[in-house]
Amino acid sequence: MKQESLTVGAVIFPGFEMLDLYGPLEMFGLAGDGFQIRIVSESGEPVESSHGPRAIADDLFSDDRRYDILLVPGGRGTRNEIHNRVILEWLKKRSWDCRFVTSVCTGSVLLAVAGVLEGRKATTNKLAFDWVASFGVNIEWQRKARWVEDGKYFTASGVSAGIDMALALVDHILGPTAAEEAALRAEYQRNTDADRDPFANVP
Amino acid sequence: MKQESLTVGAVIFPGFEMLDLYGPLEMFGLAGDGFQIRIVSESGEPVESSHGPRAIADDLFSDDRRYDILLVPGGRGTRNEIHNRVILEWLKKRSWDCRFVTSVCTGSVLLAVAGVLEGRKATTNKLAFDWVASFGVNIEWQRKARWVEDGKYFTASGVSAGIDMALALVDHILGPTAAEEAALRAEYQRNTDADRDPFANVP
Repeated sequence: MKQESLTVGAVIFPGFEMLDLYGPLEMFGLAGDGFQIRIVSESGEPVESSHGPRAIADDLFSDDRRYDILLVPGGRGTRNEIHNRVILEWLKKRSWDCRFVTSVCTGSVLLAVAGVLEGRKATTNKLAFDWVASFGVNIEWQRKARWVEDGKYFTASGVSAGIDMALALVDHILGPTAAEEAALRAEYQRNTDADRDPFANVP
Repeated sequence: MKQESLTVGAVIFPGFEMLDLYGPLEMFGLAGDGFQIRIVSESGEPVESSHGPRAIADDLFSDDRRYDILLVPGGRGTRNEIHNRVILEWLKKRSWDCRFVTSVCTGSVLLAVAGVLEGRKATTNKLAFDWVASFGVNIEWQRKARWVEDGKYFTASGVSAGIDMALALVDHILGPTAAEEAALRAEYQRNTDADRDPFANVP
């Protein structure tokens, strides 16, 4: 199915988790010409991920661009960003005017603190679950989920779960063939069942 | 087991594949304090990946640093880099003085052209197999493999296979507990069998 390409606005901040970001972006990238990827951050300086490698933004928050899809990675940097009014206000505004809002791992804590997950079901990774689930007033946090879809919100559990979540979104938008092709190009064995979570019972 | 941290020198070039690079790096990053990651490229300018997002190097080839582990991603940029004497000579020199040489996807074509895989078994991704396997004089290219280990050379098949290869190397160096913990933190269901290749028979 041919349709216009969608812009993905993928947020970075100091201490973001590499695979949270680049796993989903790889799937969008491999899904034909369906998606155009833009990295967005507060400043134009290189941004250091939680394990060191640095990324550089294409757009700044202050450019005030809208995107079709938002992608919010997690990482230890979320512990600081929950206090950063600039990213929270940008997330709130951009969540409002985009078609899909996605997060991976502790990325959902930023959406929760920004107030955009109220009244929604959502998830996060297991190892930080209790911390993340302490945010929000009326968010139905799901402990057992590979990812959670609720309306336009797609939140994934830990790190690699973002790959399955992104493929689910590719499937939702472009259909199963596009998602299967992206997985095949990545030689990735996809989990197509959002409820199948092999890590739900890890202590 | 406590031991000194190992440096990973991860190469980038225009048109590198994101997940080839960041999948393995995430696993090294999540394996306790065992690994210190450095991104290396020909220039200090931002380097654009095959789907757009840009990375920036910590070290230049001309810094002439050695690393314990080399990581060479693939991506469409390999089609140009096989003609780039600078990267090929650097790969040759660094492969000589490191403890482990790793590649993902078409990253192995650069090692092949640099001459460091002669007399070795190696693999690459399925969709570019015939092209990659046309390089080298005496390389035993393996069509059916999630990854191939031959001495200090660990070559992975397509994109996501790099994650399993990196975990196998973590296992080899630090032991199975470190590899299991990294996989658990990433909520990743690891393939521990190098010969189990679900994509071997894809046309």
